Amino acid sequence: AGPPKKRYSVTLLPGDGIGPEVISVAKDVLSLAASLEGIALQFEEMRVGGAAIDADGVPLPEETLSVARQSDAVLLGAIGGYKWDSNVRELKPETGLLKLRAGLGVFANLRPATVLPQLVDSSTLKREVAEGVDIMVVRELTGGIYFGNPRGFGKNDNGEDIGFNTEVYAASEIDRIAHIAFETARKRRGRLCSVDKANVLEASVLWRKRVTNVASEYPDVQLSHMYIDNAAMQLVRDPKQFDTIVTNNIFGDILSDEASMITGSIGMLPSASLGESGPGLFEPIHGSAPDIAGQDKANPLATVLSAAMLLRYGLGEENAAKRIENAVLETLDKGFRTGDIFSTGKVLVGCRRMGEEVLKSVDSQI
Amino acid sequence: AGPPKKRYSVTLLPGDGIGPEVISVAKDVLSLAASLEGIALQFEEMRVGGAAIDADGVPLPEETLSVARQSDAVLLGAIGGYKWDSNVRELKPETGLLKLRAGLGVFANLRPATVLPQLVDSSTLKREVAEGVDIMVVRELTGGIYFGNPRGFGKNDNGEDIGFNTEVYAASEIDRIAHIAFETARKRRGRLCSVDKANVLEASVLWRKRVTNVASEYPDVQLSHMYIDNAAMQLVRDPKQFDTIVTNNIFGDILSDEASMITGSIGMLPSASLGESGPGLFEPIHGSAPDIAGQDKANPLATVLSAAMLLRYGLGEENAAKRIENAVLETLDKGFRTGDIFSTGKVLVGCRRMGEEVLKSVDSQI
Ligand SMILES: CC(C)[C@H](C(=O)O)[C@@H](O)C(=O)O
Ligand SMILES: CC(C)[C@H](C(=O)O)[C@@H](O)C(=O)O
Repeated sequence: AGPPKKRYSVTLLPGDGIGPEVISVAKDVLSLAASLEGIALQFEEMRVGGAAIDADGVPLPEETLSVARQSDAVLLGAIGGYKWDSNVRELKPETGLLKLRAGLGVFANLRPATVLPQLVDSSTLKREVAEGVDIMVVRELTGGIYFGNPRGFGKNDNGEDIGFNTEVYAASEIDRIAHIAFETARKRRGRLCSVDKANVLEASVLWRKRVTNVASEYPDVQLSHMYIDNAAMQLVRDPKQFDTIVTNNIFGDILSDEASMITGSIGMLPSASLGESGPGLFEPIHGSAPDIAGQDKANPLATVLSAAMLLRYGLGEENAAKRIENAVLETLDKGFRTGDIFSTGKVLVGCRRMGEEVLKSVDSQI
Repeated sequence: AGPPKKRYSVTLLPGDGIGPEVISVAKDVLSLAASLEGIALQFEEMRVGGAAIDADGVPLPEETLSVARQSDAVLLGAIGGYKWDSNVRELKPETGLLKLRAGLGVFANLRPATVLPQLVDSSTLKREVAEGVDIMVVRELTGGIYFGNPRGFGKNDNGEDIGFNTEVYAASEIDRIAHIAFETARKRRGRLCSVDKANVLEASVLWRKRVTNVASEYPDVQLSHMYIDNAAMQLVRDPKQFDTIVTNNIFGDILSDEASMITGSIGMLPSASLGESGPGLFEPIHGSAPDIAGQDKANPLATVLSAAMLLRYGLGEENAAKRIENAVLETLDKGFRTGDIFSTGKVLVGCRRMGEEVLKSVDSQI
């Protein structure tokens, strides 16, 4: 195919638990898919989360952030583990992830929850309810109660201990995530549901108002509003009613995880976090699963599909992205399954072997 | 049976939408069950929510609160409707409900989510996942982000509009709900799961610490902790893993609604809200369903079962409570179903007729 036409740098952040295993698989798949499209990727591996706490004393070393910032895209495995659970906040793995998101300015978190025909029976929902579910949750990622000030511990007027956080949104923060959500809905089935708690919270009243304003620029997208408690119910009752969902940081955390479990295959689900400019952050939505770490049992497909999102949204390389997605579907069609998505009659494989099978499929695509 | 031995006063708050229909049924059932146990109930009906906004200009008239406070228990139908949705916060039906909860000091909201054998197929979850689910969500009801100050609208340093709320918990607020939760778990299967977001929020860190402290007084209860995003997933993945759940106001709002939908019969689910002293507040967990209001289609059983909770938790009248619960089960066994829980082969009935059938069953119990 001649010499590579394009070069990009990708920061790899394996993190903790099963992170290193799934990143190792995803890296190989990413490399191959890119090179078959004439793209050269240069990888740099850095520490984050518990791994960084242990080695560097902080969950996000400065060097990690600066390398990530200078690269074209960032692929993260997973962070966290029991070992660091009782650390103070500044020394929690999670704080490393939050600082990374803030440091990269990736305010828009796209979390697809799709039920693949091959895996519909993995869902705990009845087949007729789960079949065909295809939801995109657009979660605001760098604002709200995760980052709002004031926050901390103190005393109230009775001298009692209190703990407090601030849920706060500024108009521009809502507007920019709304634009991403409307653009996303427009490329999908044209329906956007904005989820809030505007019957109780002022932060949600402003959210609803701004989203409604932005809607006027997208006459082709049908906007609806739903309270978070109702949305949590409706996802269980009839998930197919949803196309694109936009919501704040904490509600998005909850709803996207619920939606992912409705698909029954959380080990399959990728995510993309994007900012105005600069590199995007791509990560599986599953956690670090410390109980199965290092045992070659993890499902690498969520990270492999995150690598596909990296190619599509991070580098604009649609063809290479499609190669990976097709290879994943083909590998599932051949019957290969890790333990989390195994069912009788299928071929049970480990993390590495699943990676090898995906590589074969990437390779064999014309 | 001679003259009634005991007298109690009950405030009825029909509210909006289907509220009046379901309260009317529940009142009759409550009266009959009580009188068969030698208890005389005196009812006073007051306005709240949209009905009060329209008639009195405020969602919780002073008189309603003072009558409620002086009674022995309060039974509420439902509040809210499209009509008042764009009102400012002070004039929203929801604000009336929040003021009622605060005014009665009912900080502990008990929300059972039980899959009845008769209704297991109403769940969208597979039979083997839904069968036998029996969860009690203990939600903190008068604190957290619902009531925290400061709250409101303002400008940030860039002169932009902001909306903000405060999530705040004091030690004593956490301790008292924890005690209720441990007591509840002790009377059930002895397992309590406390749900928070302690990996991100300081308010949750204090929550986890205080709940863990209180646990030492309940060595017979097994305490676990779970992050809210994981809990939202686990409810879908394997709801049977849960016995009693305790959580804050907003997470409880979301989780209890999700849990209720997992049972598939939200029209069946009651709730009890209790304080240190004074009358408890009892209400179905469903909303006001304005689209079917006044059509005799509503399922009155959630309110009827709330009346049973009123007898048990509000008045300490276990026998009368059991009468109602048994009558509801018997009525379902006979095959009567409102539209929301209807399936082929069953007898479709309206709200009033369902009430008549329950009355017959209450009456026929020895
Ligand atoms: C690990 C945690 C801080 C994180 C979050 O709450 O955002 C995770 O749950 C997620 O959704 O990516
Ligand atoms: C109507 C609303 C204010 C209320 C709440 O959020 O508490 C409702 O959703 C509930 O759960 O009782």
